[in-house]
Amino acid sequence: MRQNLARKLIATHLLDGDMTPGESIALRFDQTLCQDATGTLVMLTLEAMGLDRVQTDLSVQYVDHNLIQEDSRNPDDHRFLESAARRFGLWFSRPGNGISHPLHMLNFGVPGATLIGSDSHTPACGAIGMLAIGAGGADVATAMAGEPVWLQMPEIWGVELTGRLPDWVSAKDVILEMLRRHGVSGGVNRIIEYRGPGLQSLSAMDRHVIANMGAELGATTSVFPSDAEVRRFLESEGRGHEWRELCADEGCDYDHHDSIDLGSLEPLIARPSSPGNVVPVTEVAGEPIYQAYIGSSANPGFRDFAIAAEMVKGRQVADGVSFDINPTSRQLLQRLIRSGYLDVLIAAGARLHQAGCNGCIGMGQAPATDQNSLRTTPRNFPGRSGTAEDRVWLCSPETATASALEGVITDPRGLGLDYPALAPPEGCELDARLFEAPPVDGRGIELIKGPNIVSLPVFEPLPQRLELPLLLKLGDDVSTDEIMPAGARVLPYRSNIPKIAEFVFEKLAPEYVEEAGRLKEQGGHALLAGRNYGQGSSREHAAIAPRHLGLRLVIAKSFARIHWQNLVNYGVLPLTLKDEADYERLQPGDVLVLEELQNLAPGLRLQARIKDREGQLALEHQLSERQCALIQAGGLVNWLRNKAS
Amino acid sequence: MRQNLARKLIATHLLDGDMTPGESIALRFDQTLCQDATGTLVMLTLEAMGLDRVQTDLSVQYVDHNLIQEDSRNPDDHRFLESAARRFGLWFSRPGNGISHPLHMLNFGVPGATLIGSDSHTPACGAIGMLAIGAGGADVATAMAGEPVWLQMPEIWGVELTGRLPDWVSAKDVILEMLRRHGVSGGVNRIIEYRGPGLQSLSAMDRHVIANMGAELGATTSVFPSDAEVRRFLESEGRGHEWRELCADEGCDYDHHDSIDLGSLEPLIARPSSPGNVVPVTEVAGEPIYQAYIGSSANPGFRDFAIAAEMVKGRQVADGVSFDINPTSRQLLQRLIRSGYLDVLIAAGARLHQAGCNGCIGMGQAPATDQNSLRTTPRNFPGRSGTAEDRVWLCSPETATASALEGVITDPRGLGLDYPALAPPEGCELDARLFEAPPVDGRGIELIKGPNIVSLPVFEPLPQRLELPLLLKLGDDVSTDEIMPAGARVLPYRSNIPKIAEFVFEKLAPEYVEEAGRLKEQGGHALLAGRNYGQGSSREHAAIAPRHLGLRLVIAKSFARIHWQNLVNYGVLPLTLKDEADYERLQPGDVLVLEELQNLAPGLRLQARIKDREGQLALEHQLSERQCALIQAGGLVNWLRNKAS
Repeated sequence: MRQNLARKLIATHLLDGDMTPGESIALRFDQTLCQDATGTLVMLTLEAMGLDRVQTDLSVQYVDHNLIQEDSRNPDDHRFLESAARRFGLWFSRPGNGISHPLHMLNFGVPGATLIGSDSHTPACGAIGMLAIGAGGADVATAMAGEPVWLQMPEIWGVELTGRLPDWVSAKDVILEMLRRHGVSGGVNRIIEYRGPGLQSLSAMDRHVIANMGAELGATTSVFPSDAEVRRFLESEGRGHEWRELCADEGCDYDHHDSIDLGSLEPLIARPSSPGNVVPVTEVAGEPIYQAYIGSSANPGFRDFAIAAEMVKGRQVADGVSFDINPTSRQLLQRLIRSGYLDVLIAAGARLHQAGCNGCIGMGQAPATDQNSLRTTPRNFPGRSGTAEDRVWLCSPETATASALEGVITDPRGLGLDYPALAPPEGCELDARLFEAPPVDGRGIELIKGPNIVSLPVFEPLPQRLELPLLLKLGDDVSTDEIMPAGARVLPYRSNIPKIAEFVFEKLAPEYVEEAGRLKEQGGHALLAGRNYGQGSSREHAAIAPRHLGLRLVIAKSFARIHWQNLVNYGVLPLTLKDEADYERLQPGDVLVLEELQNLAPGLRLQARIKDREGQLALEHQLSERQCALIQAGGLVNWLRNKAS
Repeated sequence: MRQNLARKLIATHLLDGDMTPGESIALRFDQTLCQDATGTLVMLTLEAMGLDRVQTDLSVQYVDHNLIQEDSRNPDDHRFLESAARRFGLWFSRPGNGISHPLHMLNFGVPGATLIGSDSHTPACGAIGMLAIGAGGADVATAMAGEPVWLQMPEIWGVELTGRLPDWVSAKDVILEMLRRHGVSGGVNRIIEYRGPGLQSLSAMDRHVIANMGAELGATTSVFPSDAEVRRFLESEGRGHEWRELCADEGCDYDHHDSIDLGSLEPLIARPSSPGNVVPVTEVAGEPIYQAYIGSSANPGFRDFAIAAEMVKGRQVADGVSFDINPTSRQLLQRLIRSGYLDVLIAAGARLHQAGCNGCIGMGQAPATDQNSLRTTPRNFPGRSGTAEDRVWLCSPETATASALEGVITDPRGLGLDYPALAPPEGCELDARLFEAPPVDGRGIELIKGPNIVSLPVFEPLPQRLELPLLLKLGDDVSTDEIMPAGARVLPYRSNIPKIAEFVFEKLAPEYVEEAGRLKEQGGHALLAGRNYGQGSSREHAAIAPRHLGLRLVIAKSFARIHWQNLVNYGVLPLTLKDEADYERLQPGDVLVLEELQNLAPGLRLQARIKDREGQLALEHQLSERQCALIQAGGLVNWLRNKAS
C-alpha cells in the first residue's frame, strides 16, 4: 500500500495500537530533547524513578530559556541540569550555546528518527524528515526510560507546495499563510506533511521555520521529506553519513489536502495578539513601531540574520527603534562574525543579545507600553512578551528589518532595494566541543541541587480502600492556572514541589492548602468539580502539587484531556459522575468510601458510598489497562521504577 | 605658587568659596553625565524646574543600567529619557551603545573640563585630565541649570608611580594595591592625583581603570595628567584637537603622599565581599569557580578583552564555568569582531551579553548559590550580584581568564603561557552616529511618559509660620533604607513619587503613610529623631517621598550629611536640638509652632513653642545663606525655577 511519509515514520516506530486516526498508539522514541525550563522536573522524575541511564539512542539537555540570572535560582538550575545530564547519560548543551530546536537539527538530527521533546516547538526537526513531537515532561521521561509513549493517532494533512517564493517573501510567510487560512486550531490532531515541487526552493532551515510554527496551528507535528536538500544540509554539517532518502510514496493518500502556490504569496504579518490574526503587510503599513526583533527558533537560520544585515548595510535604524538581534547559537554568532554581518548589524544600531530564546519566551526585551513590537518569533499571545496588554506582531526578518529602518510597519518590497543575493544557505561549522558528552557510566555522579531544587516527593501506591472527605466543590471550567498559579512569584519554584504546593488554589480557595495538610495524615482528600476540569495550560504541577498535598481522587462532570492525563501520571484517580445530577447531591465535607480498588480495570464501573448518608454514587472512568496499573502503582514514577527493578 | 593638577582644575572652575580642605566651594561644571537608573529623576527635576535647555557645554543621557526588559517599565524609561534629552538639549546614547564612563571619555571627554555625573564611577574621566565627580541627581540637575554646585574642598593626595608593570600584572592590580593599602575609606574627602614616571607605561584606558575604582577608596575623584598618552588617545579617536597639556607644576605640594613601584606588583584579588579585602592571587589559588566575568566600567578597554581572547585562543573554558563577556560598547564590539577576538572568545565558550553594565549592577549574571564568581567589575558588596550571600571576587582580566581556563582561582603567571603582545592600546573608531544629538530648540517636544513615570509633585514655599504635630519619635541611626525601602518591589517606582511614597517607613511605622496623609491638608507634620538620622544610602527619595506626604520639619539630635542635604534640597527644614535632653520631653502628638520663618538665616537660633505645654524648645541649624533661601523657596526645584524666571 502506498504510504505518506508521516505514516511511514509512525509505522517504523509503532509498538502498540492501531494506526487509525483517533486511536491510541504507542511509539518508540529514538531521541529526546529537554530545555531548562521544563528539564528540571524531567530530571527530578528520572531521579525519582531510580533510572541509571537513559535508554534512548540520544538524549540532550539544552539550556536556552532561563538565561537571565537575576538571582541564584537560574544558575542553580543550570548546574543541576549539567550534573543530571552526566548522571543519567544525556548530552549537555551549556548556557550560551543557543536554542534547542535549531541546535538539535544541526548537530543531532537524523532523518527517519523519532524525537520527543519537552517543548512545544520540538516539531521543528520535522524539517529533515524526523517525526518530532512536543510533549509534557512525564512523556519525555517515559521515553528516556525506554518505555513506549502513548498518543492519539493523528490524521495526515498533505500540503502541496508549488512555484517559487517571490523576492522579499520568505519561509515565514509560508507558515503565516497556513495560519491565515486555517487559524490556530486548524492543525489539531493532524500531522502536516509538506510535499511537491515547491520544496526545491526551500532550504532545510526554511523548512525548519515552517515546521517549527506548525505548533501554532495546533498540529501534532509537521514533516518534510528527507531529499537532496537535506543531504546537502547534513553534508555541510559534516554529517552526510546520517542522511537517507525518505519521502512519501507516489500517489499515496492523505486524510486532508491543501496546496500553496509559493509564487502567489506576499509579505504577511500576524497582528496582536494571536498567530492566527494574519493580514498582508500592506494592510497595516505605516503603524509606528518601538521594536524590531530578529531571532528565535521560528527564524533561526543564517539567512534570516544575513538578510537583515544586507538590508541595513550602511544604514541606521530609525531613532527610537529597539533593533534586537537574538543569535540562534554560538555557531551562528561565529558565522555572522566571519561573514562581516555582525559588524554591519551593530553599526546599524542593533542591540546584540546572548544566544538563546530570550524575549521570545518573555525573558527580557519586553516592549514599551502601548508600542508595537515586530518579531520573527513564533508566538504573540497576550502578555507573553512581559508587557501587559502588549502589541506584538509576527513577521519575516525582511518585514521586521524594513520596519526598523523606517520606524513604521513597512512592506519590504516598498523599500526600493534590490533583493539581496545571499550565499548558499546554512552550513554552520559543526562545533560539538561545547556540547558536553555524557560519561560512559554516570552512576557515581552526584546531582548538584541548589537550595531551590528538591527531589520529587514519593507517592504511595493506591490502597485497596479509599475513605476521603470532599475538600472542595468546584464549578465548571476550572483552569490549571486556577489550580496551580504561574507567574514570576510562583514559577521560580518549579523544581520545588513542596514549596510550589503552597500556592495551590490560592485564589479559588485560600483555605485549601492548610486543610489539605490537616487531612494528609489521615489518608488525603478528594475534590469535586464540574465540567472541563483542568482546562488550559498543560503544566504538570497542577497535578503533582495537589497530589503532594494529599489529593487522591477527583470526581468531575468531565475533564480537560491533558490535565486528566497528568492526574493519572501522578497517581490521582480521575472519575466522572455517571449521573451528572449527583453533582448537586454532594457537598464539601461529605466523606466518600471506595472499596476493592485492586480490581480497577478498563470499563469497570465504580461505586462510592457517601458516609453517614443514604445511597451509592455511580462513577465511571476512561482509563486504559496501562493507566489502571499506573494509578495502582501510585503514578508513572513508581510504575517505571517497579518495571526497572 | 606651584600647584598640583587637582587644585588647578578646581581653581579654573571655582565660583565661590575658599580652596581650604573642608571648606565649602562652589564649582562650575562644563559637562554632565546621567545614566538611566538615576536619570529619570534628574529629568523629572528639570521638568519641574521649568528648564528650557541645559546650560552646560555638554550634557549626555546614557542608557546602560536597566537593559533587562522583563516588562514595560524599563523600555518606558528609555523612551522617556530619549524624549527628555531632545526636550532639554542633551545628547542621548541609546540602549545598546554601552557603558557611560568609557563612552563619555572616548566620545566627549576634554582635558581640563569638569564633569558631574549621577553615577559614582563618574571619576573615570579623570584618566584624561578632567575633574570628574559623582553626585546625587539634584546636584547634577543644578549643574545642568548652569548653577554652581557646592561641595567640600577635598585634600589632594599625590601618588607617585614608578617602574613598569611586570607581565601578567595590569592596571586593575594597581588600584587593587591602593585598596589593599588603604581600604575602602582611605580616599574619603580626598582627590587622588597620580603622577610620576610610571605613568608612561599606562595607557589612557589603563588610567580609566584606576580612576574608575578610586570610587571604591571613597575618593572625591582621581586625576591623571593630560600628557602625550592622552594626546595619542584623543588623536586615535579623531579628537586630537581637544587635547591640551595639563599637569602638576614641578615641585608642587600635596596634602598626602604615597608611591607605588609598578614593577613590584603581582596579581591581586579582592575577596568577597568588599573591594578592600585584597590579597595576592597566589594566596587563594585553587578555589573552584562558577563564573569568570570580563567587562564593566572598571575594565572597559579593548586590551582587557583582547588579553582574554589571546589567553583562550584554541582552548576551551573548563566545564561548568560560566565565562561571561560583557562588551563595553558598540564600538568595542566592532573592534572585537574585526580583530577576530570575538570569534575566539565565542569558540572558547564565552557567553556574550549586550553592551552595558549588566551583572556589575546586578542586572543578570548572578552566580549560583555558594559558588565563586571572579569579576573584573569595580564592586563586590554583599548581594550586589543578585545572589544572596554571594561570593564575588574582583580581579584583572588576566586572573579571571586564567581561572576560567582552569576552573579554579589561578595566578595567570602559572599558566605557562607567554604574556601576549597586544596591538597598541585603544583607538576605537569614533561612531557618533548612534548618539542622538539634541535639536537646536527642544521647547515644542513632548515628554513621553509611560504609566509609571509621573511628574514631580509641586512643593509650596516655607510659610512664615509652621504649626506641626510630631508624627513619629524615632531612635538613633535610622537609615534611609528604613525611611524609604529599596529592593525589587519598591525601586521600579523610582520615577513615580506618589507611588513610591506609599512605602515610606513601611517597617518602622506602618501607620505613618496614612496618618501623614490625614495631616497633609492641615499643613503637614514633623518628625523627631535621635542621632545620625538618615544614615546609609544617598537616595533622594528618602527626602522627596516624605516631603510629598507633608513632612516639613525634622528635629534630630544629629543628621547624616547626605540626607541632611537632601532634606534641604526638597524643602524640609532640618533642625537640631540645642539641648539633647529635650528629646525626652517630646512625644508623638506634640504640636510644635515655629514663627517668623521668613527671617531664617545662617547662625540664627530658632525657638519652637510646644502647643498646650509650658516652655520653649531651643533649636539650631547649620544652613548656609543659599540653603536658607532654598528652603524658603520650597526646595531646589522652586529655587532654580524662581531664578530662571
